[in-house]
Amino acid sequence: MNFQPLFGKQEFLHGADYNPEQWLDYPEVLEQDIAMMKQANCNIMSVGIFSWAMLEPQEGVFNFAWLDDVINNLYKNGIHVFLATPSGARPAWLSHKYPEVLRTSQDRVHQLHGGRHNHCLSSPIYREKVKIINSELAKRYANHPAVLGWHISNEYSGSCHCPLCQENFRKYLKNKYKTLDNLNKAYWSVFWSHTYQDWDQIESPSTIGENAVHALNLDWKRFATYMAMDFCKSEIDAVKPYNDKLKFTTNFMEFFYDYDYFEFAKVIDFVSWDSYPRWHFDKDELPTASYTAMNHDLMRSYKNGQPFVLMESTPSCTNWRDLSKLKKPMMHRLSSLQAVAHGADSIQYFQWRKSRGSSEKFHGAVVDHVGHINTRVGHDVVDLGKTLSKLGEIVGSSTKAEVAIVFDTQNRWAIDDSQGPRNAGIDYLQIVHEQYKAFWNRGISVDIIDESCDLNKYKLVVAPATYMIRGDFAKNVESFVQNGGTYVSTYWSGIVNETDLCFLGGFPGPLKNVLGIWDEETECLADFEEVDIKFDINNILNIKGSFKGRMLCALIHANEANILAHYESDFFANRPCVTCNNFGKGQAYYIATRMDDAFNEVFYSKLTEQLGIKGAIDTTLPKGVTCIARYNNDNKYVFVMNFNKTEQNLQLDSNYINLETQETLSDIVHLEPYASLVLKKA
Amino acid sequence: MNFQPLFGKQEFLHGADYNPEQWLDYPEVLEQDIAMMKQANCNIMSVGIFSWAMLEPQEGVFNFAWLDDVINNLYKNGIHVFLATPSGARPAWLSHKYPEVLRTSQDRVHQLHGGRHNHCLSSPIYREKVKIINSELAKRYANHPAVLGWHISNEYSGSCHCPLCQENFRKYLKNKYKTLDNLNKAYWSVFWSHTYQDWDQIESPSTIGENAVHALNLDWKRFATYMAMDFCKSEIDAVKPYNDKLKFTTNFMEFFYDYDYFEFAKVIDFVSWDSYPRWHFDKDELPTASYTAMNHDLMRSYKNGQPFVLMESTPSCTNWRDLSKLKKPMMHRLSSLQAVAHGADSIQYFQWRKSRGSSEKFHGAVVDHVGHINTRVGHDVVDLGKTLSKLGEIVGSSTKAEVAIVFDTQNRWAIDDSQGPRNAGIDYLQIVHEQYKAFWNRGISVDIIDESCDLNKYKLVVAPATYMIRGDFAKNVESFVQNGGTYVSTYWSGIVNETDLCFLGGFPGPLKNVLGIWDEETECLADFEEVDIKFDINNILNIKGSFKGRMLCALIHANEANILAHYESDFFANRPCVTCNNFGKGQAYYIATRMDDAFNEVFYSKLTEQLGIKGAIDTTLPKGVTCIARYNNDNKYVFVMNFNKTEQNLQLDSNYINLETQETLSDIVHLEPYASLVLKKA
Amino acid sequence: MNFQPLFGKQEFLHGADYNPEQWLDYPEVLEQDIAMMKQANCNIMSVGIFSWAMLEPQEGVFNFAWLDDVINNLYKNGIHVFLATPSGARPAWLSHKYPEVLRTSQDRVHQLHGGRHNHCLSSPIYREKVKIINSELAKRYANHPAVLGWHISNEYSGSCHCPLCQENFRKYLKNKYKTLDNLNKAYWSVFWSHTYQDWDQIESPSTIGENAVHALNLDWKRFATYMAMDFCKSEIDAVKPYNDKLKFTTNFMEFFYDYDYFEFAKVIDFVSWDSYPRWHFDKDELPTASYTAMNHDLMRSYKNGQPFVLMESTPSCTNWRDLSKLKKPMMHRLSSLQAVAHGADSIQYFQWRKSRGSSEKFHGAVVDHVGHINTRVGHDVVDLGKTLSKLGEIVGSSTKAEVAIVFDTQNRWAIDDSQGPRNAGIDYLQIVHEQYKAFWNRGISVDIIDESCDLNKYKLVVAPATYMIRGDFAKNVESFVQNGGTYVSTYWSGIVNETDLCFLGGFPGPLKNVLGIWDEETECLADFEEVDIKFDINNILNIKGSFKGRMLCALIHANEANILAHYESDFFANRPCVTCNNFGKGQAYYIATRMDDAFNEVFYSKLTEQLGIKGAIDTTLPKGVTCIARYNNDNKYVFVMNFNKTEQNLQLDSNYINLETQETLSDIVHLEPYASLVLKKA
Repeated sequence: MNFQPLFGKQEFLHGADYNPEQWLDYPEVLEQDIAMMKQANCNIMSVGIFSWAMLEPQEGVFNFAWLDDVINNLYKNGIHVFLATPSGARPAWLSHKYPEVLRTSQDRVHQLHGGRHNHCLSSPIYREKVKIINSELAKRYANHPAVLGWHISNEYSGSCHCPLCQENFRKYLKNKYKTLDNLNKAYWSVFWSHTYQDWDQIESPSTIGENAVHALNLDWKRFATYMAMDFCKSEIDAVKPYNDKLKFTTNFMEFFYDYDYFEFAKVIDFVSWDSYPRWHFDKDELPTASYTAMNHDLMRSYKNGQPFVLMESTPSCTNWRDLSKLKKPMMHRLSSLQAVAHGADSIQYFQWRKSRGSSEKFHGAVVDHVGHINTRVGHDVVDLGKTLSKLGEIVGSSTKAEVAIVFDTQNRWAIDDSQGPRNAGIDYLQIVHEQYKAFWNRGISVDIIDESCDLNKYKLVVAPATYMIRGDFAKNVESFVQNGGTYVSTYWSGIVNETDLCFLGGFPGPLKNVLGIWDEETECLADFEEVDIKFDINNILNIKGSFKGRMLCALIHANEANILAHYESDFFANRPCVTCNNFGKGQAYYIATRMDDAFNEVFYSKLTEQLGIKGAIDTTLPKGVTCIARYNNDNKYVFVMNFNKTEQNLQLDSNYINLETQETLSDIVHLEPYASLVLKKA
Repeated sequence: MNFQPLFGKQEFLHGADYNPEQWLDYPEVLEQDIAMMKQANCNIMSVGIFSWAMLEPQEGVFNFAWLDDVINNLYKNGIHVFLATPSGARPAWLSHKYPEVLRTSQDRVHQLHGGRHNHCLSSPIYREKVKIINSELAKRYANHPAVLGWHISNEYSGSCHCPLCQENFRKYLKNKYKTLDNLNKAYWSVFWSHTYQDWDQIESPSTIGENAVHALNLDWKRFATYMAMDFCKSEIDAVKPYNDKLKFTTNFMEFFYDYDYFEFAKVIDFVSWDSYPRWHFDKDELPTASYTAMNHDLMRSYKNGQPFVLMESTPSCTNWRDLSKLKKPMMHRLSSLQAVAHGADSIQYFQWRKSRGSSEKFHGAVVDHVGHINTRVGHDVVDLGKTLSKLGEIVGSSTKAEVAIVFDTQNRWAIDDSQGPRNAGIDYLQIVHEQYKAFWNRGISVDIIDESCDLNKYKLVVAPATYMIRGDFAKNVESFVQNGGTYVSTYWSGIVNETDLCFLGGFPGPLKNVLGIWDEETECLADFEEVDIKFDINNILNIKGSFKGRMLCALIHANEANILAHYESDFFANRPCVTCNNFGKGQAYYIATRMDDAFNEVFYSKLTEQLGIKGAIDTTLPKGVTCIARYNNDNKYVFVMNFNKTEQNLQLDSNYINLETQETLSDIVHLEPYASLVLKKA
Repeated sequence: MNFQPLFGKQEFLHGADYNPEQWLDYPEVLEQDIAMMKQANCNIMSVGIFSWAMLEPQEGVFNFAWLDDVINNLYKNGIHVFLATPSGARPAWLSHKYPEVLRTSQDRVHQLHGGRHNHCLSSPIYREKVKIINSELAKRYANHPAVLGWHISNEYSGSCHCPLCQENFRKYLKNKYKTLDNLNKAYWSVFWSHTYQDWDQIESPSTIGENAVHALNLDWKRFATYMAMDFCKSEIDAVKPYNDKLKFTTNFMEFFYDYDYFEFAKVIDFVSWDSYPRWHFDKDELPTASYTAMNHDLMRSYKNGQPFVLMESTPSCTNWRDLSKLKKPMMHRLSSLQAVAHGADSIQYFQWRKSRGSSEKFHGAVVDHVGHINTRVGHDVVDLGKTLSKLGEIVGSSTKAEVAIVFDTQNRWAIDDSQGPRNAGIDYLQIVHEQYKAFWNRGISVDIIDESCDLNKYKLVVAPATYMIRGDFAKNVESFVQNGGTYVSTYWSGIVNETDLCFLGGFPGPLKNVLGIWDEETECLADFEEVDIKFDINNILNIKGSFKGRMLCALIHANEANILAHYESDFFANRPCVTCNNFGKGQAYYIATRMDDAFNEVFYSKLTEQLGIKGAIDTTLPKGVTCIARYNNDNKYVFVMNFNKTEQNLQLDSNYINLETQETLSDIVHLEPYASLVLKKA
């Protein structure tokens, strides 16, 4: 449960991306920066992220002097750095001399120079040039005492469709399927006469070519993950020899679609991510709060609970959305402590100082164009720095989750790509979030895992819409329930295998046994349609009343399973809608339609009650207030967060110490709007 | 009136697309298929539609063994086949070796391999390779007793813009216009200096080039029809020599836009089509029911009333729409009998068994992935098979229509392409449907014809929005009315000739005489605007009351015509809105704006009453219930269909025999929700 | 104040684009045209606009005979011509033989022949061929007495991205920045490592390449203006030598986005434009009326008040919008006299006669397809001809504006391209229009200027959302206010310089002094959000009550400025919202949010009252009625316009003579719906 602090010290990191190369003409700026960093209790800066053109202004000509100064200067003032490899953006000379490093889009258009994160990851020249600059950086700085770790590249994303990448894709497939016959069968390519007769006929999916062979589409996405990981490894290989004690990360993104991060996380030492919640965009903050909480939980789960680094966030607003809302008073603190509550041991910003020009100049930063931090935002950052400095003992602690929710990226790809009962608006992420909210609302810690993860450490596993069953997941579910676990499944589960081949013999395929049902067909409801669901008297969870279902309705037969609720409308009225199968020592629930929030609240409340799963504080939480616990070997820390713009009262279940004030709290705690407290169980 | 049964026997066809090549690895599946087909009274299967890669796995290497088995096995079990030519999808080796067979899109991008129906129809290589496989198929199977007819290719669609197609387009234009001067004048190309000085300057319309010369756009669509017909003929030519008694079809699609099917139908022996109505998508089924009925009527009209084949339909749902709704209980029977009512002598499905993988694996089929037909959908199909087996005497009968509605595909292209008073939302198809509904609501049979068809067999011809007057249509209308026919025209009629040149001297151009009006200008109403229309006292149809008009308002002068109604609002209040001109022995009506449904109901009710045109049963039909009659030399068959989800009662006008039960019915028939009955006039 | 009549005579021009080359096969048409032109009091026709293919049907082969006839015939009948150069549309032989004259789109796709206004303006061949045809035209007609002036090309627009244009772009940038280092600094290209190391690395913005370097985007638009001006100059150079007394224009378009017309206007002698207001599209005509008035004012301001030519308008409807509404009775007169009121000395139409075919055949024209003008539209044109013939003394008079509103095209580009607090829906044009309306509502004349214009002739300058401060604008504002002027600024002002570099040291940058405030940060409101604003008691404008703000809210500190109003809601309640700074002899106002119309009405009413700025008639105008004055040395002319569809009464402030009837008016004038009167101060 207790992790070693990532970087050896029992203190939180606080800092930002720092791009002083933009200000070399303004020497006073560099000086003021250091002073303000100290004022804000900053101890970490990420440097070099987009510095390639400054570090290697011409091919093979290097200029490290400015970076020497920056790093030395920071270190002299007690500030460490994450050192970035600069592969996120090429210098213009590289694209100009070697246009093959530019990406080819899916419609086979060779891109021009510009933007960032748009290189061909197969390109031998690109790999070579990255290796050279990375080695030079490592040679110079890998043993500098200022350097805490490597920030490999930046926000890897996308893929390239050039001939070299096509070749690599074919190699990847050959390695996976061995024979064309295996591939053809796995792809069911005989449909529409799409059988491949030669490996060379395989091309990546394209709007101007093949795009309806779902297994091909899926394999292309898996290959994209593989290529990005492979590239990242090659970057690491270039720098590791210079100091093999430095840890590696690359910054991940919000519920990222392009790659399977559970795979990707295997090549890095610690997880870091860039979090930009849409605070204040909606009527209230609750959907954003639980959605962001879930994303933090996912980040923590990539490395089995090891604390992560919040590599980027904004102290005020973004600038790349249609609208950019400022953080209202108290929100910066709340949002940052929320990250900590779910496992962050660092709060960092993009970026330290707003750029004067180019596309992100209006992205919120610590230092605004005015040039000082005697601003509303500056004060928020200074205040947070003070707070973090008082919480150091929490560093290295983690979460005790008895509940896991499955959010599987490969399943997400498959659901979106599938042409089934609903091609618009299934939104798997939202379905998962709907389950998560019910736990968040009662302060119950949750791990977010995927189908490849170990289930056995949990009491309850919730796995909605597992359309694709891959690897040993079905087997693992069976043995998990057999041994006493509780499993919750839903409609649109157990439909296809890893290459999108439907399970024969009745859905939910390999989950049929453990769930004890047969899903005969799936009705799709239009957006304006709902069905009524009614719980039977004396159902095993003792749930009462009626609920609404929408979007998809599995029309099932409860074979071995017990029925808890029935549909009450449409032509399938009286067919079972919620079932529970006793299987070995455990139980497996099936929910046949997309239920409303009211259902999720009562269902998971009754279920966790029955299973003895409790929230961080054993109390009734006011709506919009949640409590999340972190534990180390000695202590339990509870983060109390009020996401309401109104005041709230919270009844404590015991005595706690407010870590900032050292005040002891008991009984009722009064919470200001957007208040956040960090308590230690007394 | 009485046609010979298409395939000699007095029995309905019942069957499906059958793709056993997908299941050759599952021998038990092929056996179970035959057993279930017999259980469902199936007597026809379409085979080979997408089998090219299986039949010719390498260039010039053929493999017919599996298809021999399939056809023999079906035949042994009393099941015939429609044999498809496989040109709808190329094998990969063909695209790979001869990339010129791939289509070039309108923006001149050469497509990659993938999808289907996307070949260059000019490609000599493609034509050659299709000829070879077709000849091989014909050589082997054309005289097999199982084969009922040829299913040529599949859902021909689209066009190619490669240099070869450009050349063919120019040849087509040379043949049509003889001289460039003729073409320039027909195109009014002098506008914007677009005069062609050389045939080679002509290129197909493109978003990156010429796209505003409407006559060019129209000719391109005509050329596309011509190319597809020419290709289809070349396919037929390859197989016909082996057995010239087999009939040919190719499967048509819903109100298809790409080609003029009245032209295309000339090269095939019988019409077949693929019908996928959007049942259960709307508040009620009425709009879908009448829309689908109109489409069936159109299919029957392509071959002058000859019964057609419903080549594809789904027993449950589609999978390629945003939403896919299941057919509710009784809907499969109702939907199938509706096709029969309007002229189908066959009910077939896409497809017999759901594919395990690829893009259409969730498209409803007779056999689901569970592998048996002991399912709701399976029972529906079995039941329908039973029903059809009792209706055999109806085969070959047809419709007696005294009313024709003009729906002209070339006019549709012209209206959509024209830049006139309303470039958004004219929706010619919907305008035609609005007229059709009024007849469907009272069970009056209607032929759907185009401007090239014979008018003289009808009492009433309704031709809304005939923006383009082509061929002898205006002359035919004049002589039709002269001889006592009744003609109904509307706003936006008689504006341009076949090459989109405006008629000079006053609209509606060549219809001015017969209609007796001058259409001075056309006002466009915004979506939120309406005008009031009021009928004059003592108008010749004795219509009372006020109605609403929208979208387009012709501001007309009633020259020789009598006025029935006036506008009552906007600056054109008091100008005539509905007129009738006595012309020879007949009458020609003009309706100046897009009227609401209430108007159409009363107008066509009064008009048909006056003309003595009656519904299938002489009774008042409850809303949503319609009756459609088929006749042969001896009998009248009435299909009674309740498209309501509520029970209804229908008052009969005479004694009828229920063909399924042989029960005699008189007086009031009680109709369950979605009920459908087949009655024979006693 | 008094200008010489543009073409020497004290009479209005009335006429149209005339394209008789479309009708050479219809000799009766050409004869009837002349007769109808005379009937409609037409005295000007624009000829040759799209005649290249007729004038030079093959390369180097010219055919002027038909144009000789046309011009001679017109002249014989008292009708002059604007002679167009035909470069707006190429003949097909030119594209076919020299494909390099075709434009390359921003995504680097070389276009095919078609359309118009789509040439590469760099192409030496295109320039050469244009020079030849222009010289031939000039040689033949420049001294023909019928020719009043040159109509250079037609509606120049867009830009080309071919390699030649890339070269020209680089030359343009070299000329502007001298060194790459200057350019890199101006572009802040160090961000994301986008530093250029070689001029050849610079490419125009593209969706497939660089698109986020805002300064590059801006320079590309400036370069596009430069190229179009340069091309226009080269056209002028080709014809000027043949008669250097003829004046030049090219027709401008509605609030045109592609080019900076304040720059472009420098190369032409008089301004002309094509005006197609969206009459009758909305609930009432007021938004369209004031929007169109503002556009006329802008056209007049390009040449410091010199009257302009309304080169194109429609007597009925357009055909290229989604909907095309007819002009209701009286609207053609009202719309035309509105143009005159704001400075037009000519009313011309596109086009004289509707084309029979091609894309604009349904665009409203004087003569419809019916072939005569005994039509509603024909009568409207004839009537207007009569009216204009009575107003000749007004020709050459202009406007006396004491108010200028800044609408800066380069600022518009910058706001749209910027990624800041609101990337959707800022709509700078609409913001400017919101200010303008308040003046239009009270009949106060306004010049529409840009940041490069002289401010000193005005009492009041209103400059909303001057995000970009370019040239000497800030200095000019300071000296304008210093000397007693009143300046109004708003939120999102003073943010960046000409290359989109943020001003350091606090916003509104160089306007900070004159405005006396610091704009700390900007909050963005969602579409559904509003904030309340309340005026302080005893504020200096004596405004009372509460108003609403939306979209953007500057959160400011009123340093030296006085506060008039505060925010009343959100977390910035009680912060200042409207301020006024006394600066030198003048005052500078700042409005921190996008206020509702109610605010603008009262604010500008109080402000103009305080400054003694009055409307054309000193009276209270009914809503939707406005009065606009033109002056010459001797007289004041007042145009009274009722844009309501209801009758109105107007109280005059003195005696006036109705110029059409010579009747003297005093006291109350009754106005019919859409009435327009031209009065001379008695």
